[in-house]
Amino acid sequence: MNEQRGVMGEFGLIAWLRQHAKGTGRQTVVAIGDDCAILRPSAGAELLITTDMLMDGRHFRLEHDGPEAVGYKALGVNLSDIAAMAGVPIAAVVAVALPRDRAVAVAQGLHVGMMPLAERFGVDLVGGDTNAWNGPLVIGVTLLGEATARGPVRRSGARPGDVILVTGPLGGSLLGRHLRPEPRIAEARALHEAAPLHALIDISDGLTSDLGHILQESGGLGATLDAEAIPTHPDALELGRRDGRSPLDHALNDGEDFELCVVVAPEDADRLLGAHAGMALYRVGEVDATPGLRLRAAGDVVVPIVPGGFDHLR
Amino acid sequence: MNEQRGVMGEFGLIAWLRQHAKGTGRQTVVAIGDDCAILRPSAGAELLITTDMLMDGRHFRLEHDGPEAVGYKALGVNLSDIAAMAGVPIAAVVAVALPRDRAVAVAQGLHVGMMPLAERFGVDLVGGDTNAWNGPLVIGVTLLGEATARGPVRRSGARPGDVILVTGPLGGSLLGRHLRPEPRIAEARALHEAAPLHALIDISDGLTSDLGHILQESGGLGATLDAEAIPTHPDALELGRRDGRSPLDHALNDGEDFELCVVVAPEDADRLLGAHAGMALYRVGEVDATPGLRLRAAGDVVVPIVPGGFDHLR
Repeated sequence: MNEQRGVMGEFGLIAWLRQHAKGTGRQTVVAIGDDCAILRPSAGAELLITTDMLMDGRHFRLEHDGPEAVGYKALGVNLSDIAAMAGVPIAAVVAVALPRDRAVAVAQGLHVGMMPLAERFGVDLVGGDTNAWNGPLVIGVTLLGEATARGPVRRSGARPGDVILVTGPLGGSLLGRHLRPEPRIAEARALHEAAPLHALIDISDGLTSDLGHILQESGGLGATLDAEAIPTHPDALELGRRDGRSPLDHALNDGEDFELCVVVAPEDADRLLGAHAGMALYRVGEVDATPGLRLRAAGDVVVPIVPGGFDHLR
Repeated sequence: MNEQRGVMGEFGLIAWLRQHAKGTGRQTVVAIGDDCAILRPSAGAELLITTDMLMDGRHFRLEHDGPEAVGYKALGVNLSDIAAMAGVPIAAVVAVALPRDRAVAVAQGLHVGMMPLAERFGVDLVGGDTNAWNGPLVIGVTLLGEATARGPVRRSGARPGDVILVTGPLGGSLLGRHLRPEPRIAEARALHEAAPLHALIDISDGLTSDLGHILQESGGLGATLDAEAIPTHPDALELGRRDGRSPLDHALNDGEDFELCVVVAPEDADRLLGAHAGMALYRVGEVDATPGLRLRAAGDVVVPIVPGGFDHLR
C-alpha cells in the first residue's frame, strides 16, 4: 500500500482508513463506508458533543511537527473537552483539508498519530471527509461522548467559598507540550466519583481565562488565586528566561496546558487532596462573591489581575 | 451589535451566536457555552453522524458567493447525508477557520445562511469552534441525526433485478445549483415509509460514481442505465453548450446535485412511481448481477461506461 501512495486516490485512501480504523466500541453499528456512521448510544445516557479545528501555522507547524503530532493533538484536544464534562468518549469523525502535493501521506500520518489515543480512550474513528487543496493543512475533529450516571459537570455550578484545584503544573506549553495534551479523562471521572464537582473546565485558553469562564457562567462570581500555590511547569521557567515574562505570568495566562480546573466545596477539596495522593492535584485559590480575579502574593498582599488568555479571533 | 463588528472578539462573537442560536429541539439539554453540548437522544433510536468540510476556492468562492451561501451549502450537504440514510436531523456543531481581516462579519454571515435550513429541518446549532487565520475560509459541519423506527437505509442492500430511481434532474450544478442543495429529508422518509428501500445514497460525486458505491457495497454488482430515461437538468444543457460535453455526460457524471439515488424491488418501484405523483421520481435503470456500468442507448444498443465522478484528492 505504501508503494502506491503517490497514485492512491480518495477511494484508495478511504479503503486504507476503513481497514485501519476497525471500530471495536460496542456503540458502533456502522463506521466508515456509508453516508453516515451509525451508533447505538447507551440507554438513557446523555450525549456529549464537541468539535475543534486546527490549522497549520496557527495550532501546529506541519513541516516542523509532522502529521503524526498533528493527528495526536487534534484528537487530544477534543478528548480534553470530554474530560472537562467528566464524560466518557465513544466515537469521532475527522474532516481534513490536505495539502494536495502529499495528501495521502499526510492523511495516513494523521491517522497514525490518532490511533494510540483512540485505542487508549476507547474512541472509534467512525467516519470523516477527506479533501485536498492548494492551502495549508486543516483538520477538524468532532468527538462524541456520554455522561456517566452522575451526569455531566458544567461550568456553571461554582459557589462563593468553593476551592479551586488544578490537575498539573502550568505554563510554557508553547515549547512543545501543546502538541501532546494528556487528556484527563480518568482523572475527571475519578474526581467526579469521589465528590460532587461544582464546576469543571479544561485549561485551553489559560488558567485566568478559563477560570473566568467558570466565574461568568456561575453568575458573575470572582476568585482569589494564591501566587505561591500556582504549580509552575519547568517550561514556564524556560520560556520566561527567553521572553522576559515571569514564570507565574506564563502559568496564569498561557494556553494549551489541557489540565483540568476543578471547583469543589472546601470540605471536598480537603478530602480530594488527601485521598488522591496518586493523582497530581493542586489547590490554587478560592471562589469569592465579589466579581473579578485577584492574586494573593507574598505578605498576603492581594492585587487585582486581568485575564490574559487567548482570543482566537485576534 | 453590528456597530461593534470590527472590535468584537471571539467571546463577543460566541455571545452573539449563543443569542442567535437558541436550540428549540427537544433533544438539546445544553447548547453553546460549555466544553461540550449535551443532548438527550430519543430512547432506542440509532444515532447517525456525518461531517463535511468546505474550503474557499474548492467548494465555493467566498468573494463571489458570500458567506450566507457558504453557510447554507455547508449545512445543506450534511443534511443531504442524513437524507441518504432516511434519517431525521437533530443537531449540528460548526467549526470555522475565518479570514482574519473580517472574521466576525464572515462568521455572522455563515450563521445567517445556516439558520433558515436549521429551522426548516429542526436542527439545533449546539456548538462549534471559531478560529481566525491568514488563510482562506474553511468550514466544517458535523451533523447528528436519528434513524426512524424503520431503521437507516444503507448503501449495501441492492439486488440484481432491482430498479434504480432518482429524485430530480441531474447535471450542470456548477452553474450555481451546487450552492443551494435541497436536502431530500422529507422525500427519503416518505419513500422509506412507502416501501422497503434496498439502498440509498445522495448524488454528491455524480450519478455514475455514487451508484458505483452502492453496487460495490452491495457485493460487486453492476447496473444498466437508460440514456433516454436520465432526467437532464437545463443547467446540463447550458453547461454542455459552453464546454462541448454532452448534456447526458453532465447528467451522468457531474457532482453536487444532491438528489437521491434509490434502489428498490421492481414491484415497489412501480408502486412508488405511481403513488408519489407529487414527488419528482425518475426510473433510470436497473441493477444487474454482472459487475460494471452500462448505458442502454437508442436502438437498444448497450455500451459499457466508466464512472466519471469526482475524486476529492485529485
